[in-house]
Amino acid sequence: MSSLVQDLKNLRAEVYWWLERPNRDADGPRFLDIALIVLITLNVAAVILETVDSIYFDWKATFDLFEGFSLTVFVVEYAARLWAAPENPEYKSRLSWATSPLALIDLLAILPALLYLFIPIDLRVLRAFRMLRLLKLTRYSPALGMLLAVFEEEAGAFFAGFFILMVMLIFAASGAWLAEHEVQPDAFGSIPAAMWWAMATLTTVGYGDVTPVTVAGKMFGAVITVIGIGMAALPAGIIASGLNDQLHRRRASLEREFRKALEDGTICEAEEAEIEALRKQLGLSRRAADQIRDRIHAEAEARRGHCPHCGKVLSEPL
Amino acid sequence: MSSLVQDLKNLRAEVYWWLERPNRDADGPRFLDIALIVLITLNVAAVILETVDSIYFDWKATFDLFEGFSLTVFVVEYAARLWAAPENPEYKSRLSWATSPLALIDLLAILPALLYLFIPIDLRVLRAFRMLRLLKLTRYSPALGMLLAVFEEEAGAFFAGFFILMVMLIFAASGAWLAEHEVQPDAFGSIPAAMWWAMATLTTVGYGDVTPVTVAGKMFGAVITVIGIGMAALPAGIIASGLNDQLHRRRASLEREFRKALEDGTICEAEEAEIEALRKQLGLSRRAADQIRDRIHAEAEARRGHCPHCGKVLSEPL
Amino acid sequence: MSSLVQDLKNLRAEVYWWLERPNRDADGPRFLDIALIVLITLNVAAVILETVDSIYFDWKATFDLFEGFSLTVFVVEYAARLWAAPENPEYKSRLSWATSPLALIDLLAILPALLYLFIPIDLRVLRAFRMLRLLKLTRYSPALGMLLAVFEEEAGAFFAGFFILMVMLIFAASGAWLAEHEVQPDAFGSIPAAMWWAMATLTTVGYGDVTPVTVAGKMFGAVITVIGIGMAALPAGIIASGLNDQLHRRRASLEREFRKALEDGTICEAEEAEIEALRKQLGLSRRAADQIRDRIHAEAEARRGHCPHCGKVLSEPL
Amino acid sequence: MSSLVQDLKNLRAEVYWWLERPNRDADGPRFLDIALIVLITLNVAAVILETVDSIYFDWKATFDLFEGFSLTVFVVEYAARLWAAPENPEYKSRLSWATSPLALIDLLAILPALLYLFIPIDLRVLRAFRMLRLLKLTRYSPALGMLLAVFEEEAGAFFAGFFILMVMLIFAASGAWLAEHEVQPDAFGSIPAAMWWAMATLTTVGYGDVTPVTVAGKMFGAVITVIGIGMAALPAGIIASGLNDQLHRRRASLEREFRKALEDGTICEAEEAEIEALRKQLGLSRRAADQIRDRIHAEAEARRGHCPHCGKVLSEPL
Repeated sequence: MSSLVQDLKNLRAEVYWWLERPNRDADGPRFLDIALIVLITLNVAAVILETVDSIYFDWKATFDLFEGFSLTVFVVEYAARLWAAPENPEYKSRLSWATSPLALIDLLAILPALLYLFIPIDLRVLRAFRMLRLLKLTRYSPALGMLLAVFEEEAGAFFAGFFILMVMLIFAASGAWLAEHEVQPDAFGSIPAAMWWAMATLTTVGYGDVTPVTVAGKMFGAVITVIGIGMAALPAGIIASGLNDQLHRRRASLEREFRKALEDGTICEAEEAEIEALRKQLGLSRRAADQIRDRIHAEAEARRGHCPHCGKVLSEPL
Repeated sequence: MSSLVQDLKNLRAEVYWWLERPNRDADGPRFLDIALIVLITLNVAAVILETVDSIYFDWKATFDLFEGFSLTVFVVEYAARLWAAPENPEYKSRLSWATSPLALIDLLAILPALLYLFIPIDLRVLRAFRMLRLLKLTRYSPALGMLLAVFEEEAGAFFAGFFILMVMLIFAASGAWLAEHEVQPDAFGSIPAAMWWAMATLTTVGYGDVTPVTVAGKMFGAVITVIGIGMAALPAGIIASGLNDQLHRRRASLEREFRKALEDGTICEAEEAEIEALRKQLGLSRRAADQIRDRIHAEAEARRGHCPHCGKVLSEPL
Repeated sequence: MSSLVQDLKNLRAEVYWWLERPNRDADGPRFLDIALIVLITLNVAAVILETVDSIYFDWKATFDLFEGFSLTVFVVEYAARLWAAPENPEYKSRLSWATSPLALIDLLAILPALLYLFIPIDLRVLRAFRMLRLLKLTRYSPALGMLLAVFEEEAGAFFAGFFILMVMLIFAASGAWLAEHEVQPDAFGSIPAAMWWAMATLTTVGYGDVTPVTVAGKMFGAVITVIGIGMAALPAGIIASGLNDQLHRRRASLEREFRKALEDGTICEAEEAEIEALRKQLGLSRRAADQIRDRIHAEAEARRGHCPHCGKVLSEPL
Repeated sequence: MSSLVQDLKNLRAEVYWWLERPNRDADGPRFLDIALIVLITLNVAAVILETVDSIYFDWKATFDLFEGFSLTVFVVEYAARLWAAPENPEYKSRLSWATSPLALIDLLAILPALLYLFIPIDLRVLRAFRMLRLLKLTRYSPALGMLLAVFEEEAGAFFAGFFILMVMLIFAASGAWLAEHEVQPDAFGSIPAAMWWAMATLTTVGYGDVTPVTVAGKMFGAVITVIGIGMAALPAGIIASGLNDQLHRRRASLEREFRKALEDGTICEAEEAEIEALRKQLGLSRRAADQIRDRIHAEAEARRGHCPHCGKVLSEPL
């Protein structure tokens, strides 16, 4: 009996090793990841193609079969991850795993389809939920990290920008309504209706399906258009500044690690590996890391002065 | 009598405490703020919905009732703020409060509606003024601060950009008029008329309601379009550079505070609280502050080393 | 006779003082500048309004009178500037002034109209040249300096971006021509014709007067559209980076000036005035200057250590 | 015989000197470069003009003659470069040159036209391949270097941005399909069809050939439009941040070179020339280099001060 428990424990560790990839260099789990990515992509492609009537009616059986297969795989995947969750040092319990964002996405990707087996849901709503499987891909994109960190860090600035946009939108729609509601009662008959034009203008999308025609409307529209380039510029400025800041801070982190490693005068192999791991985690390029290393070495060279008390050289050549 | 004066003074301090929130952590005033924000938002929504005829005629009485209620609240709010102004150390007198931007916005939000009780104003103009209540929300958005500081600080650059845009606009309109005024006398019959196209093109909005059709016009239009991406890029560049600069300076401010606190070798609790207050005021994230702290500590450590030869401390604690 | 020469010299110095404003604080020349700015603006407005037929026919005499007056003023202005040029230490001779960009703009603003008095030029061409008077305004906009410095400094990057845009444009037009030339022979009948669509798409203007309709064309168009946001982003990125760099360098200049002034331990009034002049010339805000000053003072405080030879404090309290 | 070998070797060195310009200041090779640039540009112009039927039928013989001449020149050029490749220290063998990107572009520019002499290829496909000759211009644009380095360095961020765009695109198309497929079965009849609208909206191109008309569709469209300014801002932010970073690092490289040269207390002529070469290679402006030099000199000065009390030099020349 105890041996069975031990076997299960080993199996759980094995499942964890395959699904959560604690060891990023192992080949097997990497191929499993790729297979899952392909399956998710095919799922999204299937939902998209099902909306094309001509394709759907010809290939209905194939689509249904593929959905059945995918659902099975995703259910098994969810169950396996849930079962193996205690292996992950990041989560204290299965519940804390199940309420993590990635786990909730996994659940959303299977729950509606499972429910459909018992309760008849509208097929269109079901399709929309199956589309959410796309979000499962976020797990596999480490490069997203820095961008999302920027959005998180600059949330305040984005919110302020959004507030300015809303204020501008309401004023633009009000002005256009005042100028145009008598000439174009369809497009500018009320402020909510005028918002469609205001939105397209302030974001510089400019569909052109609705445009002011009166002289007052055109003059007001021109002013709004100029403000529009400012509005469209705000997020670009925030993202540029945020990314710059992220890069700066990540580089400072790596630099601190370098300095710590150099404190004893040399960087040993273990320290080298640690720095390399940090570099990958921070998403910095090897070239950037090399430059930091060069600079720190040069600085260390320069500082190799004399002790003001005994007059000897302060450190040995590095 | 003197007790009544004292009572009034206490009441005024109480009103100040509720309305101006000198203590940002108190719960009561925070709920009052939220209630006012909701009321302002509902007011703006009401003005927007009133322009939809079908809604307006069905709910006229409700709209009027709501406007009466809102006006009363805003009048009382304005009076209370005016009365309690001397409690605020920022303002020397009630007059200096009444002429501050936020107070003028508050006044604009009630004055036209109050005037309407005595003088018949055009309802459309009144509505436009009621829309200005939206600006009352600026009081509650501390995140706006950094963005507005950027606009203020970079006003010179924005003005220069605006000048370039105006020059470009006039040249674009002149060129399009030269090329197209014979073929399209409606859209390009005069330079002012051609400006509508030039504006939409230079800002990359591109409605498409008016486009050049002659070969010369299209070639000229293509050149203007390319210049357009430059024009649209200017504000983005200015904002990005300005935000970057703001962030840099705010961080430098916090760093100076940290260094000052560390001068005696340790950061006591009072200093910690002061730094935290400054951090919030500057709108910096906790993570950014932690990183500054780490760096300064590391620097202090590094400067307080020992000579490896004679063992003496190289410098006194900073 | 020598007295007349002396009088003329004095007059020339006077003219120079009025027109070129060596002393930026004098009131008289400032009002003259404002008057000239107003006259230039009115000239541009006149040319614009003359293209509106209904206005032109009603006010022809007034327009002609105003043009005569303006031309006289600008001719006198040009002659006076040319005569007084030797007073300006920046120019070695009248010729070197006459070939400077600002002088050439001044000449272009009057020459065509003067020629018209002798040779009959097409009125439309003349109008276009009169529009160039707008460029005379560049003399009065010191804020343009930093933006133009960015364009100059980053000319290489802009040129590279322009090259990428041209390559993309040709490929986009070729692809669209391949996909659409049979279905839409008018809009996509040749690569030059398809360039109109390609230009509007790559710059994200998107008029919509011409769009692909075939499946292949739409798929290709979608790819081009995505590349378009990259193209439109290039100048924004270059300007943001360039402005950032300008700001950084200008601030470093001011910092050097501060350090130089502080070398003797204190900033005297003359040094203060010099720094203030440099600050204005560099277009930096007073707040930015104050922050640099604070930082340098703090650094000086920190460095006030002991001489390792005699042990005394290295500098007096600042 | 050995003399013939020697002659060939000399000729090869000569060819290398003319075609690959190891000496950037020589006049002859520079004119050869310009001639090749003109020829490439004319080739692209010819392919573009050939698609205009009216021009093509009138000038067919000239076009064919020009194509024959160009093909000969490009074949000779490719052969000469291949033959002279071993002279280039960057390439170990002819094969390693032939597989370099620039050599592959050169091959692509001639191969299809050569094949056409033997096998009948569709003329339209051939034209598309001839258009690839445009890429030969990349060899001559050193300014492209920094931009391409940014794209390479920030590839991860661009890929993450592209992923976000794809996710957004699929959601936008799904939502628009749900809201509009019944009212506009042509434009929004399936998710792939709705992607055309989603693409034009998310990139802020906004053709306006297809727009939502239902209230739900317009509200959803407005949300997507706002997200669109964020999407369009991502690449601008990435490029701005990347360019900034490149500039920063290139400047740091130059600074290190300056410091190294200054270690012996002075910058000799040989060092000066080396720094100038590095500056050109890094694409930094002379002004930027001068500022770095000034700063380093000032620092060196500052570090080489005297104690104001005992008059001794505080540190040795750096």
